[in-house]
Amino acid sequence: MNNFTWHNPTAVLFGKGSVAKLEDYLRAANVKNVLLIYGGKSAFKCGAYTQVTDLLTKLNITFPELNDIKANPRIDKVREAIARIKVSKIDALIPIGGGSVFDTAKAISAGAFYDGDVWDLFEKKAPVKKALPIFGVLTVSATASEVNGISVITNPEKEFKTSIESQLLYPAVSVIDPEFQMTLPEKQTIHGGVDIIAHALERLLDGDPNSEFMDEQGYALVRSMMRIIPDLIENPKNYDARCEYAWAACVAHSGFLACGRETRGDFSSHKLGHSLSMLFDAAHGATLSVIMPAWARYVYQDNPIPFARLGENVFDIYDGTDEEKAIEAIEALEDFFKDINAPTTLRELNIKEDDIENLTKNAAKNLPFGALRRLDEKDIDEIYKLAY
Amino acid sequence: MNNFTWHNPTAVLFGKGSVAKLEDYLRAANVKNVLLIYGGKSAFKCGAYTQVTDLLTKLNITFPELNDIKANPRIDKVREAIARIKVSKIDALIPIGGGSVFDTAKAISAGAFYDGDVWDLFEKKAPVKKALPIFGVLTVSATASEVNGISVITNPEKEFKTSIESQLLYPAVSVIDPEFQMTLPEKQTIHGGVDIIAHALERLLDGDPNSEFMDEQGYALVRSMMRIIPDLIENPKNYDARCEYAWAACVAHSGFLACGRETRGDFSSHKLGHSLSMLFDAAHGATLSVIMPAWARYVYQDNPIPFARLGENVFDIYDGTDEEKAIEAIEALEDFFKDINAPTTLRELNIKEDDIENLTKNAAKNLPFGALRRLDEKDIDEIYKLAY
Repeated sequence: MNNFTWHNPTAVLFGKGSVAKLEDYLRAANVKNVLLIYGGKSAFKCGAYTQVTDLLTKLNITFPELNDIKANPRIDKVREAIARIKVSKIDALIPIGGGSVFDTAKAISAGAFYDGDVWDLFEKKAPVKKALPIFGVLTVSATASEVNGISVITNPEKEFKTSIESQLLYPAVSVIDPEFQMTLPEKQTIHGGVDIIAHALERLLDGDPNSEFMDEQGYALVRSMMRIIPDLIENPKNYDARCEYAWAACVAHSGFLACGRETRGDFSSHKLGHSLSMLFDAAHGATLSVIMPAWARYVYQDNPIPFARLGENVFDIYDGTDEEKAIEAIEALEDFFKDINAPTTLRELNIKEDDIENLTKNAAKNLPFGALRRLDEKDIDEIYKLAY
Repeated sequence: MNNFTWHNPTAVLFGKGSVAKLEDYLRAANVKNVLLIYGGKSAFKCGAYTQVTDLLTKLNITFPELNDIKANPRIDKVREAIARIKVSKIDALIPIGGGSVFDTAKAISAGAFYDGDVWDLFEKKAPVKKALPIFGVLTVSATASEVNGISVITNPEKEFKTSIESQLLYPAVSVIDPEFQMTLPEKQTIHGGVDIIAHALERLLDGDPNSEFMDEQGYALVRSMMRIIPDLIENPKNYDARCEYAWAACVAHSGFLACGRETRGDFSSHKLGHSLSMLFDAAHGATLSVIMPAWARYVYQDNPIPFARLGENVFDIYDGTDEEKAIEAIEALEDFFKDINAPTTLRELNIKEDDIENLTKNAAKNLPFGALRRLDEKDIDEIYKLAY
């Protein structure tokens, strides 16, 4: 195992009715004025907005709002909020939503004390030195933004979707009440589930030979998710399955599965997926079920071992050489994505063969990346073609 | 899943050479005077003492010492240290050692700001309201005291070994350098390994039917430990296996495996083991390999399901009824303990049949306890007899 630091300071308040527990934390931090951040109707529909604003009213906390945060959230919304905060007395942020809303809150939090343009932080021109505390209320599980220090933001002018990460950007508190997720559209459950699985696979398939213990935790998580997602498609109001899904999302991308790995993971599929979201506004999870099998087919010959181990430990594939097991495992993964109705080709995302050139150019902006195989522009092009 | 709060604030600095990373944390907390706490020779032999005191000297931090902390640490040492702290300027504690040394540090930390006798806190007559920060350096993995808020202390006058738990007692920082564990006696590797497995089993066998996702993580951990312990017996200087062992210890008892469980686990075996340590100074891990199979045989008929699932998921036992699988699983667990030379009978701990009456009386002081089965004094007596 490689050296690592594990320090996840977020307090997770988990389970039905947990918004009420936020009271103690807001009191202890002496919060007076918050910026409430959310997307749209879903915050109302699931009941989270009412629960939170009732609590804030009871505690005499003011809560000006920033709403209309969309999937693949954009830097302009972040800039708008920072401008407002700099002339007000906001002392904390309360995102109500999923990864997009949490990521927006983190970007605002990072930019609130930065003198220049917040995009500088995403271009790594400056580090995050101070941040506003975040008391979040999750309504969609997938990205694990609720338990990590990562923010992924899109800059349409620069045609660039990228991330920052800082110890200062972990939410102080995240309320995870799975009841808020009982009425999510099926598509969101599917795409989120793919994202959770991808977070585990991008560790399991990074080619690090010395992370057996963490691999075993990762295999268990993928197997669990392959049980939980079909359960939820069958019965979306299964509270226990919603709980397992929500907590598995946290475990998958809280940093835990990266502990001790030589790389922190191979995020090529995430990076190639970001360009699909950037240029075609594709749902994040949908980009992963499309890209991941194509990426795997393109790179497995460099090192079939992690793919073969995945086959043995997740798909019960025991016969054949490592190379044969690897091929079978990639097929089994793709079959699972198909079984849950997740897209597995660019065509299903309405992307044309002609678009691949642009996609490749866009994704290449993020180079260098890749752990199992360090990719170059030609590799990216080939993977998109395989995904077509 | 049940509601839970997950908030583990400890920063873990993991891997060889990690003592050096402590510098930033001590500087950030403006630490000036620490109490250095350790057992005896092993702190010197493994190199930890020198690394830590070199760093403290460099940082101009004074470090009066409290040493001679023994296994099954005692309240008198805790009282002695608290008396010293109350007339000095100690602003942090640095334990160098394993669970006993960390547990002692936590008890001191809790008592440092308490006006009465620190044992009051263990008798739950008063809560922990304030605590000294702990910057620990681990040299023996097993109890996971380095990543939880639990302290287990023995009071010889009262013939009572018991614990306190508080959010304030998590170490601020724990350095886990597995190189310090390369020269541990084989017995300690075995007993510690049993303790780690027990922490997982006491969750897996608590009878909660709604924790499948956490169960799957727990099975993976037990399987990993059944691979790692024999590896280390074979080759004690295998650094990667030492890393896996040390990190598995953290995962097993950081609170993670308890998340969402109806109970926090069934700690009957720990409680019955404590009396063996109290009255016969038996090594903690050794008490668990003796008690756990006996406890399992005594209680499995109340609910064979978790034992059967353990059989399927850890020991590849697929044939027969749940009751048959349960019996086979308990045998397989005991066989594993025998294979690694862990004791499985009271006789191996030099305890006589006549001693059982006293043991029962002592353990009954901790009643009520037990989750899968709530035990009474007669049950305790029967389990000790089965373990004989």
